[in-house]
Amino acid sequence: MINLPQDQKPWLPWMRRAIQLALLAEGRTSPNPLVGAIILDSSGRLVGEGFHTEAGKAHAEIEALAQAGDRSVDGTIVVTLEPCCHQGLTPPCTEALIKAGLKRVVVGMVDPDPRVSGDGISRLKDSGLEVIEGVLRQECEWINREFSFRVRHGRPWGILKWAMSLDGRIGLSNGCSKWITNASARDSVHKIRSKCDAVIVGGGTVRSDDPLLTSRGKSNFEPLRVVFSRTLNLPKSAKLWNTTIAKTIIAYGPEGNEAFFSDLPDGPEKMLLNSNDPSELLTLLGKKGCNKILWECGPLLATSAIKANCVQELVVFVAPKLLGGSSSMSPLNSFGFESINSTYKLQHSFLDRKGEDLCWRLFF
Amino acid sequence: MINLPQDQKPWLPWMRRAIQLALLAEGRTSPNPLVGAIILDSSGRLVGEGFHTEAGKAHAEIEALAQAGDRSVDGTIVVTLEPCCHQGLTPPCTEALIKAGLKRVVVGMVDPDPRVSGDGISRLKDSGLEVIEGVLRQECEWINREFSFRVRHGRPWGILKWAMSLDGRIGLSNGCSKWITNASARDSVHKIRSKCDAVIVGGGTVRSDDPLLTSRGKSNFEPLRVVFSRTLNLPKSAKLWNTTIAKTIIAYGPEGNEAFFSDLPDGPEKMLLNSNDPSELLTLLGKKGCNKILWECGPLLATSAIKANCVQELVVFVAPKLLGGSSSMSPLNSFGFESINSTYKLQHSFLDRKGEDLCWRLFF
Repeated sequence: MINLPQDQKPWLPWMRRAIQLALLAEGRTSPNPLVGAIILDSSGRLVGEGFHTEAGKAHAEIEALAQAGDRSVDGTIVVTLEPCCHQGLTPPCTEALIKAGLKRVVVGMVDPDPRVSGDGISRLKDSGLEVIEGVLRQECEWINREFSFRVRHGRPWGILKWAMSLDGRIGLSNGCSKWITNASARDSVHKIRSKCDAVIVGGGTVRSDDPLLTSRGKSNFEPLRVVFSRTLNLPKSAKLWNTTIAKTIIAYGPEGNEAFFSDLPDGPEKMLLNSNDPSELLTLLGKKGCNKILWECGPLLATSAIKANCVQELVVFVAPKLLGGSSSMSPLNSFGFESINSTYKLQHSFLDRKGEDLCWRLFF
Repeated sequence: MINLPQDQKPWLPWMRRAIQLALLAEGRTSPNPLVGAIILDSSGRLVGEGFHTEAGKAHAEIEALAQAGDRSVDGTIVVTLEPCCHQGLTPPCTEALIKAGLKRVVVGMVDPDPRVSGDGISRLKDSGLEVIEGVLRQECEWINREFSFRVRHGRPWGILKWAMSLDGRIGLSNGCSKWITNASARDSVHKIRSKCDAVIVGGGTVRSDDPLLTSRGKSNFEPLRVVFSRTLNLPKSAKLWNTTIAKTIIAYGPEGNEAFFSDLPDGPEKMLLNSNDPSELLTLLGKKGCNKILWECGPLLATSAIKANCVQELVVFVAPKLLGGSSSMSPLNSFGFESINSTYKLQHSFLDRKGEDLCWRLFF
């Protein structure tokens, strides 16, 4: 805060409020970013608030303008992301701001979308509006890290989750894993799902756990459920084949035995891949508009996802239990590391207690 | 605090001070307990403080009496543990208190030692002193949990420590484990050692790590270093065979090949056991005066120690690294559990960050 430009200081509290507004739609705006906006009239009074609620619906700026009405004239809009200048599902926001007679636009971060990427700000400046950039830029970039990652890399931000005992076991050697963590930890998994666009499991998880993979009502927007199966050796009956609650995609590589589909009920979507590379799957999910996906898979797929740079964040639940076991049910398979210096080192993000369990979030 | 007897309230701050004094000698008094004492004169002014510094040296009460001198007359002593009434390495404290002319004794907890166990309090009452019992009893019992455990069970309180990666690995499949945790975490292991009476490893740890097992100068009282080897298949040269810094015991069961000793330098003590049961070893260490020991062993011995109820506390360091590996280097071997309900459930005690690592302490 010490070296903050003088012209940014008055806008900090308003940008914080705009960020709060943006976050209200977490998990519901993909493929779009989270955006919040507030409008102050010419005397500096708050006259409008808005946030982007869902792809295809009005942008944050338009929501705020609608509230403010005539009071926007000579006013200021504070918005977390650079206003768009292109015709998407909705018209460009820059034109609406100019038309509303605003004299100043305060922007958190530049939109990484190549269709905008500074052009929105240029358009506003060229029209004579004052533009103040980079107010709480880091915070604004933080809330849209998944959107920005997808725009830059062409695939969604990946979160890998596992739940283990104190001795690093995700199950007993007989396969039993219900329940290692307590109800509070499992509840927070449902919350994480509710903020993701898709949840991915491998065929092994479908065979052994028959999971439902929904947010259990934590969101109206249930994540897309994706089964990533090399062989299509999948059970004929599974909760995931019923798509009345949420959509299911069955993604499979060239070795997949498509005869499996003949017995499958209608509902799940088939997605043939050219390879078993997790990054191919994620690129396709990115094209379908996923900004953030959750890996809830077993050790083999988790290891392959990490190797393919398809995991950016890790969420590990640790229960104060000892399961024991010498050879099976570890969170990950071998990476072939020969020294500790070559292993993956993660950055601490967040540590929390869920009842008696720990929840540790980290970044790659 | 709400239902605290009225007669205890005035003594709470003084008992807290006595507990602080007692803890100054943590790790140095075995086989004796930690004890602190303060003396107030007849007007309630603090005139003496003391704590038990080391087995064979003066008890806390005697230290405090020496400071108070004549000012003890008609005064009060506040002491964390019931004064002893038997001749041990030093004379009975009860007699010294009576002789000093004190009128009141405030006691935290009854001494579980069968040679005292209430008799000290009876002796004081019979001599006309007022005795107030149970002031901060839980806190006093807490600081002496290891002493009380040894007195009640005949073997020391066991702490098991391991350091693992986020994916539950204590090493790579090639055996490499240096260093999973950071310097701050390793430093706190040295501190834990400095408060234990013995550190126990198995033969495998000596063969693979050649550890030193000292407190690295954190205490003048280096813990006894114990190698627990079934076969005596141990290296001829090892840091532990040099006993100039700290003592070493080589404990071995009936299958031990004693020919190993012919090449061993002088220094380490030999301890033949009737079995490979960890509780036999701990009973012998209890007889040698150990109140608290630290297991720093590999998975096989750790599992066997847990099964034999020789672990009361667990200290797990978790580093934010991913090592991977499907079959080896887990903290524990199999317990043969068939369901999650039958696994060990531990009680949270303390969670701390050591640099980027976590340190989680729990009780069985």
